[in-house]
Amino acid sequence: MPTKSEIAASARTLLRRAFKGSLATIDRSNGYPYGSLITVATDASGAPTILISNLARHTANLAKDPRASIMLDETGALADPLQGARITVWGRAEKDAEEGVRRRFLASHLEASFYADFPDFAFWRLGVEGAH
Amino acid sequence: MPTKSEIAASARTLLRRAFKGSLATIDRSNGYPYGSLITVATDASGAPTILISNLARHTANLAKDPRASIMLDETGALADPLQGARITVWGRAEKDAEEGVRRRFLASHLEASFYADFPDFAFWRLGVEGAH
Repeated sequence: MPTKSEIAASARTLLRRAFKGSLATIDRSNGYPYGSLITVATDASGAPTILISNLARHTANLAKDPRASIMLDETGALADPLQGARITVWGRAEKDAEEGVRRRFLASHLEASFYADFPDFAFWRLGVEGAH
Repeated sequence: MPTKSEIAASARTLLRRAFKGSLATIDRSNGYPYGSLITVATDASGAPTILISNLARHTANLAKDPRASIMLDETGALADPLQGARITVWGRAEKDAEEGVRRRFLASHLEASFYADFPDFAFWRLGVEGAH
């Protein structure tokens, strides 16, 4: 069995490599947990950052209830995905207009430069409170 | 723009092809939305089915609150995943011991035959109430 610090190191590495993931929010209309696809990067501290539109359902959900989780999976094309590495981090999401967040996000998501400045788009950061 | 019936047909196809996805549940300990990786199949009606362990966090969550969503994404290795097809379906999950559910699930997840009969594992079905 890997030690606790080895697990923590793997988790940080997985977060650092994050490219896309699944965001879970509480649906503002019916209270159901709502999963959606997001592109992800990290801020300097390793916290996940996302770029989302006010027009999207997950953003409306976060505006009402900031509690969220992000699941990252690296199981790719594995025949048995459940043998692969993945992590879920949870916490509260908040808008983050820091230049570093923007720069780091666009460095891994070039295509997002086309819409990052649209007035309905904003960067958000997940303040991680726990991981699994 | 595709018509509503074209969209519905694409959604059904995506569900039918489902292999893995992201399950969102309400965490029983803190109420946060919790995303986790699952392998998926469908029952004869096209509803998503999963095989999960009582020992897993998502199963404990469903036992307390059956509301859930499953997000399926077919964005694979796309440079811009947000250009790819994905669907989120939500509803209530319940255990389903139907032989057809088992047979169909194991047909697409051979590796699950090794643990499908473990006493802590059970098949669940998502009764779909909505999709996005």
